[in-house]
Amino acid sequence: MTDHVHIQEVGLRDGLQSIATTMPTEAKMRWIRAAYDAGLRHIEVTSFVPPKLLPQLADAAQIVAYALQFDGLTVTALVPNLKGADNALKAGVHRIVAPISVSTQHSLANVRRKPMEMVQEFARMRELIDAYGSSTTLIAGLSTVFGCTLQGEVPVDDVCDVVRGSLAAGADTVALADTTGHATPAQVQRVIAAVRAVAGERLRSMHFHDTRGMGLANTVIALQSGIREFDASLAGIGGCPHAPGATGNVVTEDLVFMLESMGYHTGISVERLLACRQILAEALPQEPLYGFINRAGLPNTFTQQRATQ
Amino acid sequence: MTDHVHIQEVGLRDGLQSIATTMPTEAKMRWIRAAYDAGLRHIEVTSFVPPKLLPQLADAAQIVAYALQFDGLTVTALVPNLKGADNALKAGVHRIVAPISVSTQHSLANVRRKPMEMVQEFARMRELIDAYGSSTTLIAGLSTVFGCTLQGEVPVDDVCDVVRGSLAAGADTVALADTTGHATPAQVQRVIAAVRAVAGERLRSMHFHDTRGMGLANTVIALQSGIREFDASLAGIGGCPHAPGATGNVVTEDLVFMLESMGYHTGISVERLLACRQILAEALPQEPLYGFINRAGLPNTFTQQRATQ
Repeated sequence: MTDHVHIQEVGLRDGLQSIATTMPTEAKMRWIRAAYDAGLRHIEVTSFVPPKLLPQLADAAQIVAYALQFDGLTVTALVPNLKGADNALKAGVHRIVAPISVSTQHSLANVRRKPMEMVQEFARMRELIDAYGSSTTLIAGLSTVFGCTLQGEVPVDDVCDVVRGSLAAGADTVALADTTGHATPAQVQRVIAAVRAVAGERLRSMHFHDTRGMGLANTVIALQSGIREFDASLAGIGGCPHAPGATGNVVTEDLVFMLESMGYHTGISVERLLACRQILAEALPQEPLYGFINRAGLPNTFTQQRATQ
Repeated sequence: MTDHVHIQEVGLRDGLQSIATTMPTEAKMRWIRAAYDAGLRHIEVTSFVPPKLLPQLADAAQIVAYALQFDGLTVTALVPNLKGADNALKAGVHRIVAPISVSTQHSLANVRRKPMEMVQEFARMRELIDAYGSSTTLIAGLSTVFGCTLQGEVPVDDVCDVVRGSLAAGADTVALADTTGHATPAQVQRVIAAVRAVAGERLRSMHFHDTRGMGLANTVIALQSGIREFDASLAGIGGCPHAPGATGNVVTEDLVFMLESMGYHTGISVERLLACRQILAEALPQEPLYGFINRAGLPNTFTQQRATQ
């Protein structure tokens, strides 16, 4: 029960790309600093995509340069294609996560490529990294793993096929994302078991959305299945364009509270995370912020002796 | 995985007693009918307490009489003392749940009795039921089991002492309540294991609040621990007077969605439950309604073939 659990803040990428407002670069930098000061050591800071597609993330290279200054901070960027990978490598990110949607319909709608065509692009990213002689980690970020708003059911065999393909194409690790908030606890257990049989310890992290309030329940099951790395967004920022009022990723501060309460070590201070929300409230006054601990407060039984400093 | 899970709607008692507005008797009756039509077969319909203490529930006898008309509906009332038990028995309830707070400070503040004095009152309720020759079930409803806003930590040994006392005093079954939203998943596992060792199969149900967003995660752990009966409130109505903006019980419709998605059988239609929210929205326009499924919608992968009708 003294396991360490790594939390990666993804609000700067997944959250900010899902909302209409563009957060000023300066506010993003304050967020990164505050998250680091709260104890976060993994941040997915941006995505390298054409600015005309995602103007919210047009400052990608500048944000990466800023984040690289923090000692011990693992800086990750999402990269959907070879051009983005080249830009990410030039910017000096520690990790590239390339999204590969398991749902054919979602993949075509999103990147105009079928899943296995995306795996081929992934293989080219691997070659590029190796050609640079770079130590950058390449993560296969499987999306729509638990269901798809376009396709509906996503067969677990399809998930395993994409995992196999990604590993053959040179993935260092595999992450599974519940892009659309379809995942339920029993399903999480089944899918992790199936992927574990293919990927073993290369299956490293889970990315849950809390669209239907299942995020923490799914996390508990993933913990039982041995997962020790989770994505989350401060204040659950973001959401789902298909579901007005639906929250985004699992709320970082609620997740850290749960993990620390359960005896896991995150190295992250819940109190400092709660204070970070103010940066979002000021920079994104129109956006709804989610979460429970911010409303209810920490219980009087909560003592977080092992958090940073 | 074809287990049946019993859900008891407690919004009519726990929800309505926690808000300032009094719901009109006629609206409560519509709620009971709609909940029954949605498939609910356990409803905690009211509490027998002095109307000057809880004017929201002054229509207790009338509500019980109404609920008793529904075929196969188990009608439960909360009863804090002997006088209330007498009224509940005269009204003809199927089950009495008597709250026994494990936290001494909470118990004194709430009923001006220490926990073990409340156990003695509980014994008198047992005698009364037996004197009536009634088949009414008597449930020991332990509250503040996982922590207390006044006392802080509630030792699991204290919980087990009260369980032992309640069983000796004639409890048919035991229910454990997280009155203040302190419970976290690892704790739920520990407490259930400890109480199970004392009460065996008499430990029957869990009553979680979702104050800190842990309600469904705690439920998943309780399911793994063999619990098959849970309390919940439509739209999470209610809340915690100590935490403005904090939700009440676990949201019934989210809970049913999760259970049915996991392959459990509840006999309850999520769609019909969602429609019930309209009754609350109309009768309690000032009260916040909570929940995720109502905002995000049911996923396109959700099929609930086994719900009622």
